[in-house]
Amino acid sequence: MSPLQVTRRGLLGLAGAGAVLAGAGAAAGYGFSTGAPDDVVGFRGAHQAGITTPAQDRLHFVALDLTTTDRAAVDDLLRRWTVAAERMTAGRETADRGAIPADVHDAPADTGEALGLPAAALTLTFGVGATLFDRLGITDRRPAPLAELPGFQGDRLDPARSGGDLCVQACANDPQVAVHAVRNLVRAGFGVTEVRWSQLGFGRTSSTSTGQDTPRNLFGFKDGTNNLKAEEPALLDDHVWVGDEGPDWLRGGSYLVARRIRMHIETWDRTSLDEQQRIVGRDKGEGAPLTGTAEFDIADLAATGPAGPVIADDAHIRLASAQHNGGARMLRRGYNFVDGSDGRGHLDAGLFFVAFVRDPQRQFVPVQRELARSDRMMEYLQHTGSAVFAVPAGLRDGDDYWGRTLLA
Amino acid sequence: MSPLQVTRRGLLGLAGAGAVLAGAGAAAGYGFSTGAPDDVVGFRGAHQAGITTPAQDRLHFVALDLTTTDRAAVDDLLRRWTVAAERMTAGRETADRGAIPADVHDAPADTGEALGLPAAALTLTFGVGATLFDRLGITDRRPAPLAELPGFQGDRLDPARSGGDLCVQACANDPQVAVHAVRNLVRAGFGVTEVRWSQLGFGRTSSTSTGQDTPRNLFGFKDGTNNLKAEEPALLDDHVWVGDEGPDWLRGGSYLVARRIRMHIETWDRTSLDEQQRIVGRDKGEGAPLTGTAEFDIADLAATGPAGPVIADDAHIRLASAQHNGGARMLRRGYNFVDGSDGRGHLDAGLFFVAFVRDPQRQFVPVQRELARSDRMMEYLQHTGSAVFAVPAGLRDGDDYWGRTLLA
Repeated sequence: MSPLQVTRRGLLGLAGAGAVLAGAGAAAGYGFSTGAPDDVVGFRGAHQAGITTPAQDRLHFVALDLTTTDRAAVDDLLRRWTVAAERMTAGRETADRGAIPADVHDAPADTGEALGLPAAALTLTFGVGATLFDRLGITDRRPAPLAELPGFQGDRLDPARSGGDLCVQACANDPQVAVHAVRNLVRAGFGVTEVRWSQLGFGRTSSTSTGQDTPRNLFGFKDGTNNLKAEEPALLDDHVWVGDEGPDWLRGGSYLVARRIRMHIETWDRTSLDEQQRIVGRDKGEGAPLTGTAEFDIADLAATGPAGPVIADDAHIRLASAQHNGGARMLRRGYNFVDGSDGRGHLDAGLFFVAFVRDPQRQFVPVQRELARSDRMMEYLQHTGSAVFAVPAGLRDGDDYWGRTLLA
Repeated sequence: MSPLQVTRRGLLGLAGAGAVLAGAGAAAGYGFSTGAPDDVVGFRGAHQAGITTPAQDRLHFVALDLTTTDRAAVDDLLRRWTVAAERMTAGRETADRGAIPADVHDAPADTGEALGLPAAALTLTFGVGATLFDRLGITDRRPAPLAELPGFQGDRLDPARSGGDLCVQACANDPQVAVHAVRNLVRAGFGVTEVRWSQLGFGRTSSTSTGQDTPRNLFGFKDGTNNLKAEEPALLDDHVWVGDEGPDWLRGGSYLVARRIRMHIETWDRTSLDEQQRIVGRDKGEGAPLTGTAEFDIADLAATGPAGPVIADDAHIRLASAQHNGGARMLRRGYNFVDGSDGRGHLDAGLFFVAFVRDPQRQFVPVQRELARSDRMMEYLQHTGSAVFAVPAGLRDGDDYWGRTLLA
């Protein structure tokens, strides 16, 4: 192992022993350790990590605004971000001797709270908002689908929880690792960006791999049973990855739609099991469609019973289904949240919806319009935040960096 | 295994198979499972769980206010809370067939989002605030140490994040398990209590057992090295458990002091390693006092160097030390938090300080007064929330319940 591969765990042992980096020979002696092989998610590739990566348990999402119109300063930040991000996803500090600089008169380059923690499958996924293009005077480069979403019936959006020039989605199996990564990127952006909003999620609400169980949302139902999965590359090409229709920098990339959805859990909790299951269109225990018995049974939207359609006309899974929406599908990657209380005696809880799509205007917008208008579940929901970001393609090996092909 | 011991994991398999509870014989056939033995923390005993229990990774803390002055209604709620809490800490639903009631026309008794999740070492620790006694007309039963804390220099307390008639501290190794527990207790309190404030913590900042590593706070330093530990029963008797000086219901109990401490991490991150270490009085890598080389070395507060005391007069560990405070010690059990952003471009991050003490007025107040006045770290901190609760003794076996000896 070369010194450059020293992880946070290893470096900590090393610093504590008062030693200096001495190469592979020192590794065993100073208690170096790398994360378990499956604990590190590769940073480079055709697509950014954190999209089809099996959804990690925890999220810290941050949206930032530029505080400058200087394109060179932004370009420089993105170079520095890329270096730090690649290091952190490998379980390393943002810089060598980052937390414990050799010269004690230096401010540490790494804030240190992840010292001793593993990589925890950290992924950092980077995106740009429509407003960035205006801010930097490159409006002509903005792809048409990267536009503010239209208003939907029932929306109650808080501008302080919406939009942003840039975003970073940090997912990890240890929340402190995700928080550390966002904090260090925010810090590196001082003078160029500032935090617009930030959201922690404590429990994933979708699976993005066939190897994962379907988790439950705060309505107590399995969520995302019909999600697109990493093991379906042809469907991902159709529904997630931007193809030849997009600009160079976005081919192989995607669009990220974020919606902060407050759930009125107190009202929901007063409804009967029957009503809950009718609203969702699935049974609560197994997550099977009401026309089936097992979770992954295909919903029979045409089936009727004595009282009409088995899966109601206003059931969530009908209105959200690909069949009902001209085949539109998404790769969902949301998280449950609780953000304290609302000042009116209730928990401020819900779902931070994140979806990756090839075209938000063609996939997310028509589905959400339909849900906002007709989904009976909307009585128990309120959308309080909204944002869309273009997520560039993955980075090639070498000196490639976030946004290079966009800003260069 | 009797049907009453069915866990959430087991019940889920059972409900999915459409079967009914059929006793021990059915267990293997329907895929019952219990949590791993060390995954369940015992609920009853001389002291409440969640104090000396090895600190779990995640926290959901809730403070509630009574919406009634009817003592019988509160007594009834506490009985119901105790039943639900004991079940949930065992990895079970709040009631048999709670999430999937036998009659679909019933509202589920359990909200269901923890179905399939393990017990995750959940502990639920219950406390009462000073205001409860006035509200219920039992002011004469309020123990003297249970009083609002005095104001401290630099405090900027938000009333909406302070106080409360009741509290529940939920700690678990899975945040969804902690959130589920708080939510279901809040729900059971409908008509009797409402949420006053709630705080999620994502990473423990103290160890409460010698078997745990010392974790790091958001200043990147190990925190709570000198914490009281479960393995020190004589010290716990001296510093944590209320003795004969307290009323019956509180003997063997404790006081919980909660302080929401915002950290100005951006400012901290600009200081040099040297300055950070002088402020703390420890080195950042190992966590050793500046007069030693290993984390658990005893700090030599008398040691001097060429420039004066090695551990500065205004260093945090000096001012917080037992030596400096007439022997006062605490059992700390805090958590790191990030609550989104502050609207001014920064993360709203810090430490949710929780400490258990035998007498907050004699232990917490003088130490905090000294820190508020002299600790150089205070430049980087702001206390934004505050509360004190009396935490009754543990429950005996049988029909004992939270608050019984207080309200009866």
